[in-house]
Amino acid sequence: MTASDWLHENFDPAGSSIGFRIKRKLDEVQSPFQKIEIYASTDWGNVMLIDGAMMVTTRDNFLYHEMMSHPALFTHPDPKNVVIIGGGDCGTLREVLRHPGVAKAVQCDIDEQVTRMAEKYFPELCESNGDPRAEVLFDDGIAWMKNAAPGSLDVVIVDSTDPVGPAEGLFNKAFFESCFRALKDDGILVQQSESPLVLLDLIKEMRAEMGKAGFTTFQTLPFPQPCYPTGWWSCTLARKGQGFDFREADARAKDFATKYYSADIHKGAQSLPPFVSEALA
Amino acid sequence: MTASDWLHENFDPAGSSIGFRIKRKLDEVQSPFQKIEIYASTDWGNVMLIDGAMMVTTRDNFLYHEMMSHPALFTHPDPKNVVIIGGGDCGTLREVLRHPGVAKAVQCDIDEQVTRMAEKYFPELCESNGDPRAEVLFDDGIAWMKNAAPGSLDVVIVDSTDPVGPAEGLFNKAFFESCFRALKDDGILVQQSESPLVLLDLIKEMRAEMGKAGFTTFQTLPFPQPCYPTGWWSCTLARKGQGFDFREADARAKDFATKYYSADIHKGAQSLPPFVSEALA
Repeated sequence: MTASDWLHENFDPAGSSIGFRIKRKLDEVQSPFQKIEIYASTDWGNVMLIDGAMMVTTRDNFLYHEMMSHPALFTHPDPKNVVIIGGGDCGTLREVLRHPGVAKAVQCDIDEQVTRMAEKYFPELCESNGDPRAEVLFDDGIAWMKNAAPGSLDVVIVDSTDPVGPAEGLFNKAFFESCFRALKDDGILVQQSESPLVLLDLIKEMRAEMGKAGFTTFQTLPFPQPCYPTGWWSCTLARKGQGFDFREADARAKDFATKYYSADIHKGAQSLPPFVSEALA
Repeated sequence: MTASDWLHENFDPAGSSIGFRIKRKLDEVQSPFQKIEIYASTDWGNVMLIDGAMMVTTRDNFLYHEMMSHPALFTHPDPKNVVIIGGGDCGTLREVLRHPGVAKAVQCDIDEQVTRMAEKYFPELCESNGDPRAEVLFDDGIAWMKNAAPGSLDVVIVDSTDPVGPAEGLFNKAFFESCFRALKDDGILVQQSESPLVLLDLIKEMRAEMGKAGFTTFQTLPFPQPCYPTGWWSCTLARKGQGFDFREADARAKDFATKYYSADIHKGAQSLPPFVSEALA
């Protein structure tokens, strides 16, 4: 590989492609679940791929990790017990632990190798793994959620790969029923929900499955994410009761820095473009 | 070329790449200014490239064209005379002419072949070219603006390619001085300003050049745009006076449909993420 090689992810479901200019391959491991590759890029720092799909770059992961955590945590009235299903790169865990009110954050990813690679090539994402409030598990998130004590959780964050392979079981009614049971009455579920430009059907289907599991209110928040197909991504929040009461004053007064998230960005993301809101209506 | 071919634009300045799955090449023309290619894609309709850079797809051009036109036109108090420099695909012209108050919209693109290709492969973008308020010119936009009557224009839209090749002269003080002189006192200049994620320096430099030309207030609005590098793009507004008074009530009451633009999207875009606002401060 030369200094001018380009690494592309050709994303079949959308017929679109994302790529980065690569300096060299740094590592590759075949775990029991998936193939993990690490490249050094010219402009985006390190890049992690799982089964050929871009997962994380040093430069742009803050967009995804901030939006997977802070909107849900600043919507829940008082999040203390948080669980992350997936999220093996530990970036979402780090953001969750920025909230001083969080008493415990469990991260349950099936693949230990993702975290081992993150520790080596994205150490900044793992800097809070030693926090006494953090518990980093390598286990089946579907089983973990099934066995969770009913009404024990405030926020469940599903930080998964695409709904194929190991993550397929994280997008259906059975899993969402486990989440529903494990959440307290005012609990919030948030899940990465792919590109609102080309995968609106997936978002609709996910919301429908969440609805069958008992969730009654949904909120899809778009955000930019260059390393994912189309460069525009989303997370979807679900809760048992009605409405999402954004704790705007607390978000404005937060005592930690963010690069993308802000109270205004959070408010803005709640207004969907007409073509998205019409499709989800 | 087979049905499974992928066409990539490897964007050197950002070290990132965008691509689409292509069915076949439909056309190619070498104009006096640039090479224009048209492809049929599997999922994005037709795709136009200029000198190898993605310009327009059938599926996602509404994002760019709506954001290049409606925010500026709903900020100016009463836009009557509008000029588009570049914009040869005619999509911005179509959006401008949706505003019933616009009395005249001139489109001045140096390359007639861009419009000829758009008429053939993106006819929906050209559907307003016959509007009696429209004037479609093929001429040098820099010279046109230099010769424009002082204080004659309400809104100038610079809908250009990247600041290399034919568009290079559209990003400097001399051109902005011509715009400043041609605009009325309450006039607004809006220009496409590349990716806020990787080309923040370019946005800063553009705003500095606009400032040297006399403009005093700036507003950069980000929006998603999958066919451009990083999938996240921006336009930058500039005016002579202070502040941008968004005519929110008029935007809410608009009598034409938009797919991405709305009063709420416009408001949301005015809140920049911290890493962008800090860089532009």
